[in-house]
Amino acid sequence: MRRRNLSRALYAVAGEGPASRASVAAHIGLTRAAVSTLVDELLRAGLLVELGPGRPGGVGRPGSHLALTDRGPCGIGAEIGVDRLTVCAVDLRGVVRTRTTVPAANRASDPAAVLARLGELVAGSVRDADREGLRPAGLALAVPGLVKRDSTTVVRAPNLGWQDTEIAALLPLPHGLPLTVDNEANFGALAELWLGDASAPRDFIHVSAQVGIGGAIVLDGDLLRGARGFAGELGHVPVRPGGRRCPCGGRGCLEQYAGEEAVLRAAGLPHGDPGGRTGTLADRAVAGDAAIGRALRGAGTALGVALAGAVNLLDLRAVVMGGSLARLAPWLLPSLESELAARTAAPDAVPELLIAQAGDDGPLLGAAHAAVRAVFDDPLRHGAALTA
Amino acid sequence: MRRRNLSRALYAVAGEGPASRASVAAHIGLTRAAVSTLVDELLRAGLLVELGPGRPGGVGRPGSHLALTDRGPCGIGAEIGVDRLTVCAVDLRGVVRTRTTVPAANRASDPAAVLARLGELVAGSVRDADREGLRPAGLALAVPGLVKRDSTTVVRAPNLGWQDTEIAALLPLPHGLPLTVDNEANFGALAELWLGDASAPRDFIHVSAQVGIGGAIVLDGDLLRGARGFAGELGHVPVRPGGRRCPCGGRGCLEQYAGEEAVLRAAGLPHGDPGGRTGTLADRAVAGDAAIGRALRGAGTALGVALAGAVNLLDLRAVVMGGSLARLAPWLLPSLESELAARTAAPDAVPELLIAQAGDDGPLLGAAHAAVRAVFDDPLRHGAALTA
Repeated sequence: MRRRNLSRALYAVAGEGPASRASVAAHIGLTRAAVSTLVDELLRAGLLVELGPGRPGGVGRPGSHLALTDRGPCGIGAEIGVDRLTVCAVDLRGVVRTRTTVPAANRASDPAAVLARLGELVAGSVRDADREGLRPAGLALAVPGLVKRDSTTVVRAPNLGWQDTEIAALLPLPHGLPLTVDNEANFGALAELWLGDASAPRDFIHVSAQVGIGGAIVLDGDLLRGARGFAGELGHVPVRPGGRRCPCGGRGCLEQYAGEEAVLRAAGLPHGDPGGRTGTLADRAVAGDAAIGRALRGAGTALGVALAGAVNLLDLRAVVMGGSLARLAPWLLPSLESELAARTAAPDAVPELLIAQAGDDGPLLGAAHAAVRAVFDDPLRHGAALTA
Repeated sequence: MRRRNLSRALYAVAGEGPASRASVAAHIGLTRAAVSTLVDELLRAGLLVELGPGRPGGVGRPGSHLALTDRGPCGIGAEIGVDRLTVCAVDLRGVVRTRTTVPAANRASDPAAVLARLGELVAGSVRDADREGLRPAGLALAVPGLVKRDSTTVVRAPNLGWQDTEIAALLPLPHGLPLTVDNEANFGALAELWLGDASAPRDFIHVSAQVGIGGAIVLDGDLLRGARGFAGELGHVPVRPGGRRCPCGGRGCLEQYAGEEAVLRAAGLPHGDPGGRTGTLADRAVAGDAAIGRALRGAGTALGVALAGAVNLLDLRAVVMGGSLARLAPWLLPSLESELAARTAAPDAVPELLIAQAGDDGPLLGAAHAAVRAVFDDPLRHGAALTA
């Protein structure tokens, strides 16, 4: 109970920006006295700081204002892409404090080698964070593959060539650092949910594309994981049932018509090199390349067919385009939009089409914020370490 | 709190069959004394009855056994089909006590006339129930169309030709009888969930077909309604995106390839008459009609494509075939199964294919049980009326 109230007080300060004890009390529906006790505890634990008297011009008696610390616990987010590794540290305020990206040829790679390299980057990030007065509370890792529910096992990541990979066993980490692993589209969707404003939808599908196409479904503000953790495989929804063979074993999967490789192939361009594809596509499209324009329109149509199926099944309020799709939206959206409008069966139920606020960074930021939220959800545990 | 405990005690007796106070106490984790108080209250309210001493051969001191009453509150379930109206009454034990079906030409019908006729059937059912010592606690109505969430408004029922129909305003009911309205596939799925045994899946899609194809999705034991109540429109998942036009405005929707009309059309048979189609299909298939066999295989393939999309999006453990599909399963399943197996992207995630336990009766029974469960969820309210 105390843990829950500490957590609510911390979220209240996060939601309001600098806040008085009175406004925290109003926000969480406890007495001012009860909130003062909670706040004192959070101050002692070094999770909140006092900013001094309230801002001039505020109404009523000036009170000392509270803010989240810019020191203490932070969340480490990491992402394994097909062509790069990225690690960042986000503090309790949600500010990215350190960030490192290195190019990496992770396609058809050896998981042990990739994870050893990632471990070095994490260690570097932890050192950088330490210099800023930050102490990592946990690491969350986004991978382009299926992750078994409540585990750190990557069951399959076709674009890395990984199968049944136990991340926890292969990733060297500072002693005791908690690790969570999830699909990159899931973290991307969570970033939208967590970083969006109050008007952001709570029933949506988040679509992201790099080499493959990932999807993540949020229903009534909760990420849908599915029975085994494999929900959201939008890339393997059939859009041309008799069409092109897919490595998944199916035929005519969306990924075969709207993945980056597929678009490059459709435009008659080389598609073997995984680096800089989105750049190529976007640059050429901006330059008015007709073949690329056509290929992207075709991809938009395929996305619209698959998403119409999802919308008819799930009655979603919005489709959020993330990953590299965010950059390509101007060319994809017209055909995508017209398919969705024509194929949504329920009246007045055509979903809004939105661009991911976090853009390409959704999976990384979603991961880092997941680690930060673990602190919010159990403040004592992370504050105690500081005061010990 | 008292209401919740009365409800739990009632569900415990329902789950166990005749039960002693001790076993109810063990089941819900309260003391025997607390349970005795609850049980006495439920006995006084006429919701439970005492069966006398425990069955011979039971272990320990014989105690009086408790059972749900076969009198008192009952749930009325009703279903509007394209070619018939059905009403039934189910008692607290889950036994169907009265049932009336009348043929009716409800296609492109006047809602007021259909609902007036249904009102007569309900009144008759209430009289029949009364003769059995049963008192209707509520009416739940299954309709083949989209129902706005938490309302009694049928937004669209293409096969009835209804649009924005306010059922509550048009259906004459005995004074004070609570009414709920929902999509027939939703009630069919709830019937599977409620009537199944402990091994029944809790993550599944329930597919039902009459003229149209309905779907309902259950995730982690909860029916998914969607933002507006329109989730589960499996019939409008695109399976041949450039294919046949659908009245929904789309093209190549599943319904155009696996609905009853579509199958009859594919077999070169007349398909205008909505009566007895499933009979025709099943009878001819049994007789070895090659054209029907081919048409049903094609329908199975189309179902497999749409369901593979749903499984890849939602990571479901099972597909449950209900409605008339249950009878046609022997001809549909082989092609359906092979599509699902080939197109399920996640490893070892091919869902089980099950036939609905309630068969054609799912929507009707789901509706009646929904009305019965309203009594279980708030026993005081319904018991009080009896003792007043």
